[in-house]
Amino acid sequence: MRRARVTVAYDGTDLYGFAEQVGVPTVMGRLREAIEKVARGPVEMVGAGRTDAGVHGWGQVISLDLPETLDLAMLQRRVNRMCGPQIAVREMRWAEHPEFHARFDAVYRQYRYHVLNTREPNPFAARTAWHVIEPLQLWAMQLACDPLIGEHDFSTFCRRPKGQENPSMVRRLISAKWSQVDGDVPGLLRFEIRANAFCHQMVRSIVGTLVEVGTGKLHAGDIRALLLQRNRQTAPQVAPPHGLVLWEVGYPTSLPTSSPTTSPTSSPG
Amino acid sequence: MRRARVTVAYDGTDLYGFAEQVGVPTVMGRLREAIEKVARGPVEMVGAGRTDAGVHGWGQVISLDLPETLDLAMLQRRVNRMCGPQIAVREMRWAEHPEFHARFDAVYRQYRYHVLNTREPNPFAARTAWHVIEPLQLWAMQLACDPLIGEHDFSTFCRRPKGQENPSMVRRLISAKWSQVDGDVPGLLRFEIRANAFCHQMVRSIVGTLVEVGTGKLHAGDIRALLLQRNRQTAPQVAPPHGLVLWEVGYPTSLPTSSPTTSPTSSPG
Repeated sequence: MRRARVTVAYDGTDLYGFAEQVGVPTVMGRLREAIEKVARGPVEMVGAGRTDAGVHGWGQVISLDLPETLDLAMLQRRVNRMCGPQIAVREMRWAEHPEFHARFDAVYRQYRYHVLNTREPNPFAARTAWHVIEPLQLWAMQLACDPLIGEHDFSTFCRRPKGQENPSMVRRLISAKWSQVDGDVPGLLRFEIRANAFCHQMVRSIVGTLVEVGTGKLHAGDIRALLLQRNRQTAPQVAPPHGLVLWEVGYPTSLPTSSPTTSPTSSPG
Repeated sequence: MRRARVTVAYDGTDLYGFAEQVGVPTVMGRLREAIEKVARGPVEMVGAGRTDAGVHGWGQVISLDLPETLDLAMLQRRVNRMCGPQIAVREMRWAEHPEFHARFDAVYRQYRYHVLNTREPNPFAARTAWHVIEPLQLWAMQLACDPLIGEHDFSTFCRRPKGQENPSMVRRLISAKWSQVDGDVPGLLRFEIRANAFCHQMVRSIVGTLVEVGTGKLHAGDIRALLLQRNRQTAPQVAPPHGLVLWEVGYPTSLPTSSPTTSPTSSPG
């Protein structure tokens, strides 16, 4: 057996999240079924980050062991025929290191969140953007990101995992940036956030809070106090899952996997 | 009663086309139901162009008569709450001319067709782009457009309507252009085509033919001969509906309705 590294994209709309669950379609469940069919044996897979039901993926990374004789190009083709287009393996290759671990080796995770800020709905943004009708002040939302950058206890913005006595909510936020997206969807806003790791619902809780700043219900100056509360009850709202996408996972020994220009084996046909 | 003008966008994936049909959801059917509920009476609607099942709309235009006392902003909001986000009224206003007719007054229709030209599928392009795996030569596809520009009998690329003895297939093609789309979807190609009017399945038949040129199965020099055949049996293939979108309809006395920068009432909130 040999360690392999897989980059996966998925439209999470009709999926029950990344992690396997009995009886419902999930990213991991559907991928495992397809890979096991081709590899003709059980496989154990590890993902870089769990995503909730309805959340999308573009650069999700998975590590797993496969028989060394397996033709990965053939495997990728067959898996995509079985799982696509809802779930698509963007890249499948042997890992540089035999012990490569998608979750523990990751040095950062980058998420994107899209908000459609228009009066009327847009059919082509409905699956991947949160429609907010009230006009948003982008500069205020950007200003409100400042106190979040750096290493903090993010308890205010995190849902506590069940069954853990006193889990650490300390994370290191590397960057957080709002921008307007040029393209075919007028009024589309993008939030790009990078951290060493995120706790549960952290991005959606931060987005929900920043949108309150954008509408004027909160002020940028309120964010620091909220963060210091370390109390989830004080966070105003959690943004819906369908605007969120796990965009990229970074590893120390290699270039980011989700950029097609830097990854020689993932260039489009 | 007063003549109104409506611009509509729709994701056609789960709709049975634009025109009303008994027992299945269509754009016109769902819009009429919603408008009649608010207007409290029957309405007659005319669309600029019929689109087939699975085809999308961004700038479809509809003309209809409504009670003069009706608040159009309220009507738009309520219709979008009932029909959105799958179908969204982008703009609703009183027509400049009392006799404005969405179909007969249109001087051009512009369609877009998207092709995803990558080895692997992309979950986020699956609903709106035709996935073509074989590498396409964009310059050859562009060259092949030349003989189509101008006024021609497009019988080769048109499906004959039932029940008409000898319908004219003469149309005036104004422009046809291929381009690569910069954005989040690597390998996305766009075909933009404008004509005074199109006959049935004409855009999809032209795209199917141009893609054969892109893969090298046909040569750009073959297109003129195909056009002169005036025989639908000679056209190689019809591209699938889900890559097509009715992008814009042009009228002589007003600016295009689908550009938010030129239309004062459709600017995003």
